[in-house]
Amino acid sequence: MKRKVAIIGAGGFTGLELIRLLSDRSDVEISRITSNEYKGKKLVEVFPALQKDSVGQTLFTAHPESVDELDSIDFVFLATPDNVSMQWSPLLVEKGIRVIDISGAFRLQDRKIWEQFYKLDHTAFELVENKTAVYGLVEKNREAIKSAKLIANPGCYPSSVLVPFIYLKEFLQLFESSIIIDSKSGTSGAGGRKEKDSLGYSTVYENFRAYRIEAHQHQPEIEQEINNLTDYKFKVRFTPHLLPLFRGIYSIAYLKPKSGAAIDVEKIMSEIKNKIENEAFVRFYDNPNDLELKNVQNTNFVDFALHYDHHADVFMMMSVIDNLRKGAAGSGVQNMNLMMGADETSGLI
Amino acid sequence: MKRKVAIIGAGGFTGLELIRLLSDRSDVEISRITSNEYKGKKLVEVFPALQKDSVGQTLFTAHPESVDELDSIDFVFLATPDNVSMQWSPLLVEKGIRVIDISGAFRLQDRKIWEQFYKLDHTAFELVENKTAVYGLVEKNREAIKSAKLIANPGCYPSSVLVPFIYLKEFLQLFESSIIIDSKSGTSGAGGRKEKDSLGYSTVYENFRAYRIEAHQHQPEIEQEINNLTDYKFKVRFTPHLLPLFRGIYSIAYLKPKSGAAIDVEKIMSEIKNKIENEAFVRFYDNPNDLELKNVQNTNFVDFALHYDHHADVFMMMSVIDNLRKGAAGSGVQNMNLMMGADETSGLI
Amino acid sequence: MKRKVAIIGAGGFTGLELIRLLSDRSDVEISRITSNEYKGKKLVEVFPALQKDSVGQTLFTAHPESVDELDSIDFVFLATPDNVSMQWSPLLVEKGIRVIDISGAFRLQDRKIWEQFYKLDHTAFELVENKTAVYGLVEKNREAIKSAKLIANPGCYPSSVLVPFIYLKEFLQLFESSIIIDSKSGTSGAGGRKEKDSLGYSTVYENFRAYRIEAHQHQPEIEQEINNLTDYKFKVRFTPHLLPLFRGIYSIAYLKPKSGAAIDVEKIMSEIKNKIENEAFVRFYDNPNDLELKNVQNTNFVDFALHYDHHADVFMMMSVIDNLRKGAAGSGVQNMNLMMGADETSGLI
Amino acid sequence: MKRKVAIIGAGGFTGLELIRLLSDRSDVEISRITSNEYKGKKLVEVFPALQKDSVGQTLFTAHPESVDELDSIDFVFLATPDNVSMQWSPLLVEKGIRVIDISGAFRLQDRKIWEQFYKLDHTAFELVENKTAVYGLVEKNREAIKSAKLIANPGCYPSSVLVPFIYLKEFLQLFESSIIIDSKSGTSGAGGRKEKDSLGYSTVYENFRAYRIEAHQHQPEIEQEINNLTDYKFKVRFTPHLLPLFRGIYSIAYLKPKSGAAIDVEKIMSEIKNKIENEAFVRFYDNPNDLELKNVQNTNFVDFALHYDHHADVFMMMSVIDNLRKGAAGSGVQNMNLMMGADETSGLI
Repeated sequence: MKRKVAIIGAGGFTGLELIRLLSDRSDVEISRITSNEYKGKKLVEVFPALQKDSVGQTLFTAHPESVDELDSIDFVFLATPDNVSMQWSPLLVEKGIRVIDISGAFRLQDRKIWEQFYKLDHTAFELVENKTAVYGLVEKNREAIKSAKLIANPGCYPSSVLVPFIYLKEFLQLFESSIIIDSKSGTSGAGGRKEKDSLGYSTVYENFRAYRIEAHQHQPEIEQEINNLTDYKFKVRFTPHLLPLFRGIYSIAYLKPKSGAAIDVEKIMSEIKNKIENEAFVRFYDNPNDLELKNVQNTNFVDFALHYDHHADVFMMMSVIDNLRKGAAGSGVQNMNLMMGADETSGLI
Repeated sequence: MKRKVAIIGAGGFTGLELIRLLSDRSDVEISRITSNEYKGKKLVEVFPALQKDSVGQTLFTAHPESVDELDSIDFVFLATPDNVSMQWSPLLVEKGIRVIDISGAFRLQDRKIWEQFYKLDHTAFELVENKTAVYGLVEKNREAIKSAKLIANPGCYPSSVLVPFIYLKEFLQLFESSIIIDSKSGTSGAGGRKEKDSLGYSTVYENFRAYRIEAHQHQPEIEQEINNLTDYKFKVRFTPHLLPLFRGIYSIAYLKPKSGAAIDVEKIMSEIKNKIENEAFVRFYDNPNDLELKNVQNTNFVDFALHYDHHADVFMMMSVIDNLRKGAAGSGVQNMNLMMGADETSGLI
Repeated sequence: MKRKVAIIGAGGFTGLELIRLLSDRSDVEISRITSNEYKGKKLVEVFPALQKDSVGQTLFTAHPESVDELDSIDFVFLATPDNVSMQWSPLLVEKGIRVIDISGAFRLQDRKIWEQFYKLDHTAFELVENKTAVYGLVEKNREAIKSAKLIANPGCYPSSVLVPFIYLKEFLQLFESSIIIDSKSGTSGAGGRKEKDSLGYSTVYENFRAYRIEAHQHQPEIEQEINNLTDYKFKVRFTPHLLPLFRGIYSIAYLKPKSGAAIDVEKIMSEIKNKIENEAFVRFYDNPNDLELKNVQNTNFVDFALHYDHHADVFMMMSVIDNLRKGAAGSGVQNMNLMMGADETSGLI
Repeated sequence: MKRKVAIIGAGGFTGLELIRLLSDRSDVEISRITSNEYKGKKLVEVFPALQKDSVGQTLFTAHPESVDELDSIDFVFLATPDNVSMQWSPLLVEKGIRVIDISGAFRLQDRKIWEQFYKLDHTAFELVENKTAVYGLVEKNREAIKSAKLIANPGCYPSSVLVPFIYLKEFLQLFESSIIIDSKSGTSGAGGRKEKDSLGYSTVYENFRAYRIEAHQHQPEIEQEINNLTDYKFKVRFTPHLLPLFRGIYSIAYLKPKSGAAIDVEKIMSEIKNKIENEAFVRFYDNPNDLELKNVQNTNFVDFALHYDHHADVFMMMSVIDNLRKGAAGSGVQNMNLMMGADETSGLI
């Protein structure tokens, strides 16, 4: 029996990637695709590549007027703005429809911090407080995800940064509490499909800059999730940049060993390799110079590596992902796979 | 009377940029341009833009066989590999011909470190030991440059990083000794005009990676020059990356305040603005988000900004340059201007 | 005495290029710069490169409310939409202020065709009919331009195509009347600075397509001006394309020799070289494979070449320009130079 | 039972694409992959994306020393230079091993023209003369391909140009014999994986030019295959250009109707749509402005459209393909599918 899926807000980059990932599956049926932009169009009009494919005849529809219209649906992906996700999620959860929310609405556990960074009043924070919302980073929360009613799908930058930290867990107390994260993203991660002036070709080509240096909403998300690993509390400095390319994020975490702490790189690497052995989407590189965006574009992988600089006594972990896959739609599907009892890698390899 | 200039090794990106910068000047005559690659060709054959210009008829020649061929020359630019610069510089200095060496041959004051990073025996290190070679960062060494016989022109990454540090000088003791420099460069800085496989279009487009993570020869240069500012000794962590674009370097320096140190951002900014008031090529931005490569491409400017992250207690200085101008040919000409008593900005604005 | 210049509509790519070209001149003073977008900002806020320059303190102002505000102005550049140019040009001409109109308002001699392609009623067509408006392609209309009151500055695609035809004039009757023009432009020529969705980075990168295949307003302009060269009437097929780059146009004109016509390539080339000898901005290449955008970017040159394919009996002329220079602001300044009696190349080389 | 496949010369772009297309199939086994460049490396070392995949452990080997080493192989792909293909093909054919030759060795039926354009003596032309070699354009030669011993896989430019002509067949006599083909290709089509200087990032970015204007080896291939459709003989003018992007070819064919010929666009379009109905990889667009590289990248599709310019009396067909798929490896696999009796689309959709 096929699971019925609805994608709400399917006209952005993430929505389109979800359609790509789900439209070929034999165990999933895309029952509803909503998009204010493409309302009334067939899939094939937006994806000419589907011209010879029956799914291409599916129509984009308007957003549902009431949750009742979604009665028969098993999984709803919300690829919507934060305020829309806040509005729909409680209704869907109440109906017993499982939700994978790609927005940032349910990622932070501290309401005050959420409201400060998202510049909104949160109208459904009880879903965080009563632990209905599960942070959907599979490599960290696999068991909780299986039975979750509402997934807070991780942000793109956090997805790139956090996975390596999972495997550094037992070494975290070796480092000073101030961590520096320097991240670089392509245009599809830095904005949406609706091009703003700042993502025009003439602005982006042959250019590079940092942005939202003072405050980016992924900073508290990264900090919270690193701190959820242990009871040691880090403070995260996060600097995002815009690369002149479309897909991919490259992040470096710089950690300073505490005075006198001995960094045993061999042991750390051996632990990491051990722990990721059964992970389908995590790859460790012995040589950090081999890490590059090309290796992960259009895949669900997180590739990472590390380097310890003896001279300056600085420990580094660098990682790359495709922001539209592992950083958004790919991890959303990975979550859905777990929730429906399918192979975690279905449709992703 | 025009000063006579020779450019040795003029076929690379830096050599070509020197020709562009010098060919229009009324006070300078390019008397000799050598290039193994373009030997026998006219300037106009390499720069079609000079087709309607008399200087376009000048020929690229072979390298001189003996320094005697350069008898009448006032200034020699060496845009040559390190070993060629090591060989020619002592001969030219002895002749009384003033040299601006764009290679890395004379930048480091510690022979052992030089030989370790450059993987060569140094055959003319006496020019460093007897202080003939002057590190040609104008904003730092203006007076010494005016009378110098041999200029060690700064590396591209160091040029981007060091200028901001000059103006932070009196605050340096507030910070921990371990500094992190995260730099990103276009292809013209990361390689030379002779494309290697790794700079092919198909390798660079839509890609991003760090390289020479373990050891890059600009690391000791940056560390030495920061440490020459005061008697406080920093250890520098340096990570270079390759951007999918042609010209420009973006660097961030991350500094950790010592425990209990008070960072007075207003005071630091006011000091900086005060000190750069008379600098022709240094610009400070109040908003670090405004800093971008586009603002400095094809100019000799160093643009910089700073940010203090109260939450994670991290101080940052970010800076951008054009690696072929302020990072190579532009600063070379700036040095020559000082050496010949001309306006420092001649040919550069 | 400096000529006073106003630039109306200075916030687009062409307006900004005009400011760049005019702000350094000793014989010209930019007295007024209007921009709805940048109104109230200083030049330096839009061009950070002017930070150390006094002209950088000039303010962008609102559009003048009445032509009286421009009383003291010698030359007005209209970098405005067609309808604004139609409205201002008669008023300025009446005042005796000389106008260089970068829009398409006065380029076509047939009102019906103009209204069909520009989808507007023309409200000032008498300026075309009474020959006040002069088509500002210097290489073709140099004498008329010197005394013109109103210049219809050529379109970007026509500028690339027409110059080679000027020098083919006496051979035109050798060819069939149907001509094919296949042109490719970067994003700055295909749109404006106000990025539309179709010029977003994610749409343009790694992509290529033709656009407005059925009708582009530069088609009748090209046809009219080729036909103005002789009394032989050609019909022009014109296909524009969008390149994934910022500046530059590459055009090929394909001409079919009439049955039995003898194409003497040597003679044609010799005529061309003869005729362009005194042209400052026209360059002919013996080898058409050497023609490329890089040679003309940021210059006012038209580079061109030709090839006769004996096998298929097809004659080709290929040409390249920078669409923001020779295709817009550069030729505007070239026109102004002639009108004010200055050297034609002032500020352009 | 799995068919055993060998890929000879697998280190270039086409070889790597073949591995990608074949490594996931249940009915095909890649038994041998040879590459002078990667000899001794595992697949996963070249394709990090295969790290978690068993096929990733396969080794690249040296070229076989004798054809006997390939005894058990069913299909050999030759992704080798022309001279290597000429040498191996007769030996393999004699052994009864079926060959899909991606090189140009067996594409032309006229030895003199082949030797003129390929600048080589042909040492195995009997395979052309005795019709062993079949031109592998499936949409044209489907039946002959099924039983072929040696496939001459079409060139990338011809693949883009020829497919639309197949469906124009019955209208060809309406046009003059001189045809103009204006084609634009990304860097992967214009060169190989071994970057030459001319495909370096700094040469290609923000640039565009035509190349091999006088003679490109795909010109006679295009002309031959158009002329094989009917007994009407066309002469083809072919102009290739280099786009600043990696994958994709866009071609326009310009045809001039004979004097008095009536072009019934509706009828032509209806014929085309009728004929392609059962074609898996051919798509016709009603609006030629919708045709773009993005629609076909990483697919095996040929998308095409047409336009008739009444004014200039010019008929145009424009088409796009991915040069590494339908222009090389994709059509190679499509050929193999037919030869082995599999579904033509296996592994390609």
